[in-house]
Amino acid sequence: MTRSRSTDGRVCTEQPTPPATVHDVDTDLVGAVDRTLGGYLAERTADADRLDPDFSAATGELRTFVLSGGKRVRPTFAWWGWRGAGGGDDAAGPDDAETVTSVLRVVSALELIQACALVHDDLIDGSAVRRGEPTLHTAFTTRHAGMRWEGVPERFGLAAAVLLGDVALAWADDLFLSSGLTPPQLGAAIEPWRAMRTEMLAGQYLDVITQARADESVDAAVRIDQLKTAAYTVGRPLHLGAAIAGGSPELLAAYRSFGADIGVAFQLRDDLLGVFGDPAVTGKPTGEDLREGKRTVLLALALVEADRTGRHADAALLAGVGQPDLGEREVAELSALLVDLGAVAAVEQWIIERTSTALAALEAAPIAEPAATRLAELAVAATVRKR
Amino acid sequence: MTRSRSTDGRVCTEQPTPPATVHDVDTDLVGAVDRTLGGYLAERTADADRLDPDFSAATGELRTFVLSGGKRVRPTFAWWGWRGAGGGDDAAGPDDAETVTSVLRVVSALELIQACALVHDDLIDGSAVRRGEPTLHTAFTTRHAGMRWEGVPERFGLAAAVLLGDVALAWADDLFLSSGLTPPQLGAAIEPWRAMRTEMLAGQYLDVITQARADESVDAAVRIDQLKTAAYTVGRPLHLGAAIAGGSPELLAAYRSFGADIGVAFQLRDDLLGVFGDPAVTGKPTGEDLREGKRTVLLALALVEADRTGRHADAALLAGVGQPDLGEREVAELSALLVDLGAVAAVEQWIIERTSTALAALEAAPIAEPAATRLAELAVAATVRKR
Repeated sequence: MTRSRSTDGRVCTEQPTPPATVHDVDTDLVGAVDRTLGGYLAERTADADRLDPDFSAATGELRTFVLSGGKRVRPTFAWWGWRGAGGGDDAAGPDDAETVTSVLRVVSALELIQACALVHDDLIDGSAVRRGEPTLHTAFTTRHAGMRWEGVPERFGLAAAVLLGDVALAWADDLFLSSGLTPPQLGAAIEPWRAMRTEMLAGQYLDVITQARADESVDAAVRIDQLKTAAYTVGRPLHLGAAIAGGSPELLAAYRSFGADIGVAFQLRDDLLGVFGDPAVTGKPTGEDLREGKRTVLLALALVEADRTGRHADAALLAGVGQPDLGEREVAELSALLVDLGAVAAVEQWIIERTSTALAALEAAPIAEPAATRLAELAVAATVRKR
Repeated sequence: MTRSRSTDGRVCTEQPTPPATVHDVDTDLVGAVDRTLGGYLAERTADADRLDPDFSAATGELRTFVLSGGKRVRPTFAWWGWRGAGGGDDAAGPDDAETVTSVLRVVSALELIQACALVHDDLIDGSAVRRGEPTLHTAFTTRHAGMRWEGVPERFGLAAAVLLGDVALAWADDLFLSSGLTPPQLGAAIEPWRAMRTEMLAGQYLDVITQARADESVDAAVRIDQLKTAAYTVGRPLHLGAAIAGGSPELLAAYRSFGADIGVAFQLRDDLLGVFGDPAVTGKPTGEDLREGKRTVLLALALVEADRTGRHADAALLAGVGQPDLGEREVAELSALLVDLGAVAAVEQWIIERTSTALAALEAAPIAEPAATRLAELAVAATVRKR
């Protein structure tokens, strides 16, 4: 990608990349999403620069954050949701490039919603590191301290993170609105777009209040997974793609069922990684979820078992997670306890069952190829054991 | 407004109010906006309740906040912007009610953007009181403390305020998207809608970084006013209304010029109220802006004058504003200083000049009645002296 730079070194514009075909995107979806986001954020940063250079410097940080990684999970499900509902099948005509560009813009907008979710979530959790880099509020706190500005550095970090998360959410809607969908496509897309954003925020709020209440039930943990992952990450992106392609009610039902199962399985795998994962892979220190006191299904199952078998000391240990200063040794002890109480095995079993049900729903549904195969592969890839 | 209640006392639905005519809205705009917001937030709270009752309890707080007041300034400018561009003039036909409902929904959506701005701004500033009531983050902090939940109450308050501000921003876009505008109207509205949200966030960020840098220049204060008030509060709402009505480029230019002048005048009046205002009118304690250390044009002008005349002790006093524990006596001293240095008189003069220029722009423009008269009245009402 060629970039032109202004005299002060800021990137101002980006030369347009040639329009992609359906086949191009099918074979390099992550690359296509990255290029779409890169082009859009370059435009919006140039806009921001016309308003004020301090503001564009801040949105530049947001842009770097969005472009610096992420697996583009939600755009991937949305794209294959569209393809599986027949989107792009009759795409040899002159409208091909235009349609592909519009759909790519819509699915890429999901990453901006996710940027808002991550920036605000890191602030809420007080997390210092994300993908091996300082989180946004931490970076702005450090900048304030380094510049010896007035006031409390942490409050500046908070302000910047709140506002840049808002920018990401507003720009997500702007990208969706200006995607170039036809009026009927846009009309059909409104319902999943609306539901998805509210479900994400509901899941985040439940996560916060569940921790505040120290609600350690399996039910509460599953409910959060259903909103944050099953609906927001898998089900609604598939729904969005299918709606744009005019998918049948039968197909939507299959996607919903698939999303519910695979989303929960996916989150259960993430819970295991949050305790046992390799920092080089997860970008977070080992045992981070234990330090944060995250109320996961994994933890809830261990607690049920400790209570059932009268292991009160172990139950108290588990209920007490959430010390930010937990050392390596305590993390290792707690991890061993989760294995010992059978919670790890139970979660692995649950992942297998949910994945099987999800694959069966896929099998039975009228999903076009190559999407059916790709969705099955995604389901497996997202849920198999990996450390 | 009739409300039906579910068995547990939560409000679930609201009976639809009869559709309004253009004349109804012209004569009771604030009432029409309140009813539109009330109906929409009732629907969305019911949605939220289907997701989770804890979440709907939280969004219920947001709903109360939105419905409990505010002068509906932005919807007012947007409505008259639409009317002044000829919107609603040919409204005797069968489409009347439908068009009015759509436009009302769009202009009401501006109040949800404003709810996000206020909730996040109060969190950023650490303000405890708004419109005489606890701010949202304070209310959730108090609730956490009262319930003796786990963790730090202030962090729960922060989390709730971040997420509910996000909900308001997402719902603003949902209301805009589902307003029922025709595709050409929606297409025309996208540009002001997009620009307005980014300009608001740019203004908020500049406000924060200007305080951090202790930048006391008149320029910095004016730049913030241009973004936060001239563009976001007046100019873009007028632009939005005009775009929906298909207003001419000439009219848009007049609105832009009017918005720039009246918006700054409006903010200057607000700055005076922030120091000298009656708490019963402003809903904030007297001298609140001095406690917050808000970098206003008023303060900047006083500083310039103190520096120019070598009143170094006074300059130091003014530069040191921003102590949350400032007593009544210090507030009175600082207020007297602002008068004594001529800053109050200069700001009053500036307000008069800006208002005159704005009224002249209005006069010269092809604005339909009764909008031209109403906009002139609004300009005067928003900027005249009041304590």
